[in-house]
Amino acid sequence: MNTLLQPKTLRGEHSRAAIFEAALALFQERGYEATTMRAIAERAGVSLGSSYHYFASKEHLVLEFYRHTHQLHLAAIGPLLARERDLASRLRGTIRAVVVTCEPFHDFPGAIFSTVANPVSPLNPFGKESKALRDEVIELYAEVVKGSDARLPDDIVAELPTLLWLYQMGILYFWIFDKSPGRLRTLEVIDQTTELIVRLLGLANLPVLRGSRKKILGLVRSVAQGT
Amino acid sequence: MNTLLQPKTLRGEHSRAAIFEAALALFQERGYEATTMRAIAERAGVSLGSSYHYFASKEHLVLEFYRHTHQLHLAAIGPLLARERDLASRLRGTIRAVVVTCEPFHDFPGAIFSTVANPVSPLNPFGKESKALRDEVIELYAEVVKGSDARLPDDIVAELPTLLWLYQMGILYFWIFDKSPGRLRTLEVIDQTTELIVRLLGLANLPVLRGSRKKILGLVRSVAQGT
Repeated sequence: MNTLLQPKTLRGEHSRAAIFEAALALFQERGYEATTMRAIAERAGVSLGSSYHYFASKEHLVLEFYRHTHQLHLAAIGPLLARERDLASRLRGTIRAVVVTCEPFHDFPGAIFSTVANPVSPLNPFGKESKALRDEVIELYAEVVKGSDARLPDDIVAELPTLLWLYQMGILYFWIFDKSPGRLRTLEVIDQTTELIVRLLGLANLPVLRGSRKKILGLVRSVAQGT
Repeated sequence: MNTLLQPKTLRGEHSRAAIFEAALALFQERGYEATTMRAIAERAGVSLGSSYHYFASKEHLVLEFYRHTHQLHLAAIGPLLARERDLASRLRGTIRAVVVTCEPFHDFPGAIFSTVANPVSPLNPFGKESKALRDEVIELYAEVVKGSDARLPDDIVAELPTLLWLYQMGILYFWIFDKSPGRLRTLEVIDQTTELIVRLLGLANLPVLRGSRKKILGLVRSVAQGT
């Protein structure tokens, strides 16, 4: 590493973090729509040009927010994945950690989450700009599956991580609308759905279900590629 | 009917329709965000107060848009439901008619559709204001199921319409992101998923699947109630 560059890089890291923190604070104070890049730059104590240097748009700040929660999630789930071999426990723990990690941001203006249904937004979960993060989440679910002691057919092992990523989006969607105290309803739904998923995986080898299994996996592959 | 009121009512209907048409035109020309209630009133040739009398907010105009497409959908699917008894054909026809009916609006600004993931928006599909329309769509799927010659267990007949409403939302979500010509990919996915649904319904009576079936139906009931 070129040590001459290091101080500049560190300063850059510092500015980047300050902009990100200012944005989060303003989103919570004023709402997402009402927050401008100018206001974010002022709060962070940097120039407007500098803000745009680090984040091309307000939406890129939300993408950074997603990355941030993903890092929190990885840190939260690490110990369990290192210790536990039972697939149901690994899956339940991982998806539960997603919503528990995101809980402090639950009352974030809905506008932030609503961009997931906007195909022209760089934040939509199928878009180019969110691909790196999407791949990381799918990779995490591959680890959830491969690190377990469950014996699953190869075709299922290949598609299950993508299916679990879709499942995580479904749970997060439910969580956004969940008004129960501490989002306990979401935790219950996670208990029920993870048990159901593992139960159905156990049935997937039944001859009578083999045709449906092939069709489901083909569908997951095709939907994931087509987007 | 009080005939003295009729002319006024008709005039009211006319204003309401003019405001709705002006809104649709402006959403397509300028985008949803950039369109104001004032601009809509001007285009419709009515006062701003009159606009707010018929539609409490811009979002209520989008709710009207959903109602409008639902009416188009009902009209499109009527003949098939009157004639066809095969469940797979009824289901495929019904869900296909949704996307074909919505096709002229596909390039509508994503912002309109993105409100579905916003819990504070009156447009979110689980909210109070969209309940009437949601119930109508669930009622339509009840008719799709009940008018078929499929023999299904009572517990499935009870929850299937709600499940099919969720399925319709999933297909519409896929359709929003579909960039294939004429949205042919969505039509393919509809073929594959409706076939799979009917196949799985046929297996639901297998003793080995009875436990999973109970759990899945309980989950649908609980998720639909909880929201």
